Amino acid sequence: MAGVEHMRALYFDGERARLVERPAPDLAERVGIRVSLAGVCATDLEITRGYMDYRGILGHEFVGRVATGPAEWIGARVVAEINIACGSCASCRQGLGRHCPTRSVIGILGADGAFAEHIAMPLGNLHRVPDSVPDEAAVFAEPLAAAFEILEQIEVRPEHRVLVFGDGRLGLLISQVMRTTGASVTTIGKHGKKLALLSEFGIETCLLADWDASSAPGDIVVEATGSPKGFAQAVSATRPRGHLVLKSTVAHAGAIDLSPIVINEIVVVGSRCGPFAPALAALADGSVRVSGLIAERFGIDRGEEALREAGESGVLKVLIDCGGA
Amino acid sequence: MAGVEHMRALYFDGERARLVERPAPDLAERVGIRVSLAGVCATDLEITRGYMDYRGILGHEFVGRVATGPAEWIGARVVAEINIACGSCASCRQGLGRHCPTRSVIGILGADGAFAEHIAMPLGNLHRVPDSVPDEAAVFAEPLAAAFEILEQIEVRPEHRVLVFGDGRLGLLISQVMRTTGASVTTIGKHGKKLALLSEFGIETCLLADWDASSAPGDIVVEATGSPKGFAQAVSATRPRGHLVLKSTVAHAGAIDLSPIVINEIVVVGSRCGPFAPALAALADGSVRVSGLIAERFGIDRGEEALREAGESGVLKVLIDCGGA
Repeated sequence: MAGVEHMRALYFDGERARLVERPAPDLAERVGIRVSLAGVCATDLEITRGYMDYRGILGHEFVGRVATGPAEWIGARVVAEINIACGSCASCRQGLGRHCPTRSVIGILGADGAFAEHIAMPLGNLHRVPDSVPDEAAVFAEPLAAAFEILEQIEVRPEHRVLVFGDGRLGLLISQVMRTTGASVTTIGKHGKKLALLSEFGIETCLLADWDASSAPGDIVVEATGSPKGFAQAVSATRPRGHLVLKSTVAHAGAIDLSPIVINEIVVVGSRCGPFAPALAALADGSVRVSGLIAERFGIDRGEEALREAGESGVLKVLIDCGGA
Repeated sequence: MAGVEHMRALYFDGERARLVERPAPDLAERVGIRVSLAGVCATDLEITRGYMDYRGILGHEFVGRVATGPAEWIGARVVAEINIACGSCASCRQGLGRHCPTRSVIGILGADGAFAEHIAMPLGNLHRVPDSVPDEAAVFAEPLAAAFEILEQIEVRPEHRVLVFGDGRLGLLISQVMRTTGASVTTIGKHGKKLALLSEFGIETCLLADWDASSAPGDIVVEATGSPKGFAQAVSATRPRGHLVLKSTVAHAGAIDLSPIVINEIVVVGSRCGPFAPALAALADGSVRVSGLIAERFGIDRGEEALREAGESGVLKVLIDCGGA
C-alpha cells in the first residue's frame, strides 16, 4: 500500500451509498491491509436507512492481506475485529474493548469501513486466517464471531430446546453455532430454500406461516429476524424464566409490550460482536459451513449494485471483490 | 367463616371497581381466611385500566387470620403467596409454581382477590406471620417478596452500583432490599418527600429533574417507575453488559428502541413475584422498614375511595381495613 494515494470505496453520504475515489487511509499506528473480499451485512443496509447516523466508507466484514506494517505480518491473510478501542479505559482494562465508550467501529461509527480497496487497522485487531480456510469462508468470520458471542453470554446445554427466529444471513450462522452445543435447534423462517440449508446439521426447520404458537416454548430463543415484529413473536415463544437473545439491530423503534417479559420473568440478552478465535476454528474444522450461504459476488466497481441486491428480500450473503488481493 | 354466606368486597366489572355484596368463597380444598388488612398496588390500578382483562374481586396484598381449615391453623395470622398453581405440571414439579401455565392469581387472573372480608386460599400458599410483625407491616409481605425476587435472579455484590428508577411504593421497597446487600444504591424519583424516607438506610437519592444522564452508569438498574417512558431512561443508565431489572407492568405498549440493548449487550431481567420467607424475616429483624410508607387507611366500606386515592400521583401505600380480623 506504500505509495497508494487514492482508492475506490463505497461511501455513504447520509443519502446514498456511492462508489467514490478516496484518499488511501492514514497509516499512523495502523497496519495497512489490501481488502480481498468483503461481505454485506444487514447492519450496512440499516445504516443506509439512518441507523447510527453514520457517514463514511461502509462495510465491516472482510478478509485481506497485510500490505504495510511489521515485517512478520506483511503478506499475512487476515480478518479483523471491528471495534477500535482506546486500550486504556476501565472497560478496556477489563478486556471489554468491544464496549470501550470512546471506541470507533469500522463502517459503523467514526471509522472508515472495508468496502474499499484498502483499510487501516490497529495490529491488535487482526487475526491470521488458517491456510485451510479460503477467502470465501474467512469473510464470514465477523458475523460468525457474533453468533459465537451467544455462547459467551449464556450456557447452552444439550438438553435445551433452542428456537432461532430468522433465516437470514445471521440466523443461519446462529443456528449452526447453537447446534454445535448438541442442543436441539429449530429455526423458523420465511424461506424454504434457505431453511433447507440447515438440514445437513440436524437442525429442525419450520416455515413461519406454519409455526404453531402453542408448540413447546424454547428454553433459549434467538431473535434474528431484523424486524420489529419479530420481538413480540420471540417473547411469546420463550418459556418462563427462559433466555431470549436479541441479535437484530433495527433503525426504528417499534411499539413493544414489555409485560410478558415481567410476567414470565424472561431474561433478555442483548448480543453484538463476538470472539474471532472460535469462529475461525469452526470454519477450519468444518463444524460450521458457509459455502451455501453465498448469493452472489460483485466487483467493487459494482458495489452500489451489490448493496441493492443484498437489500432484496430473501437474498443471502452478497460479497464484494475489493480487488486488493 | 363457617356459616358466612355473604360478604362485602371490591369487585371490578370491567368498567369500574364497585363495593358489592358477594357470596362468601367456596371452601372446597381451601382454607378460609378473614382478611384483616389489604394493600393497594399499582397492578390493581392497572387492572382497572384494562390490564390482564380481569373481572372479579380485586386485591392481592393482605394479612388475615385463618377462620376455617386444619385445627393447627385456626386463628393463625397469615400472609399468602398469590399464585395458585396446579401442583403437578412440569413447572410445578421444578418448584416454579409461580409460573404454572394453568395457575390462577388472586385478584389478577381467574381467582377472586383480597379486597373483601373473606378469601379462600390453598393451605400451601400460607405463611405464618411472626408475632413481632404487626398487621401494618405484614401487609407489605407480598410486594416486599417481589422486591426480594431480584436477589434470587441476579447476584448483587457490595462493589456494585445499583440505580433504582421510581420512588413509588415498590421502588422504595426495592431500594431497601438492594441496600441489604451492602451495594451502593441510588434511587431516582419525582418526589423529594418520598425519597427522604430512604436516607436513614444510607441510600443516595436524586430528583429525576436533577438526574444527570451522563453520571456513572449502574452495574444493576431497576426500572420501577410504572411508566413506559421509564424503560428508555433505565436502559441508558445501565452500563455495557450490566443488568436491567424490569419490575413494572403497564397496561399499554410503548414505542421502544431495542438497539441500545443489543449494542451494549445489556441483560434485561423480567421480575415478578418473589419469596415470602426473606420478606417476613426482613420485616421481623427491621432490615426493611415500612412504617413510613403508609399513606392512609380506609374501611372496606370506603374501598372505592381507597382506590381513587391510591391512583393519585405521589401517594404511597393505601391500606384497606377489611374488617375480618
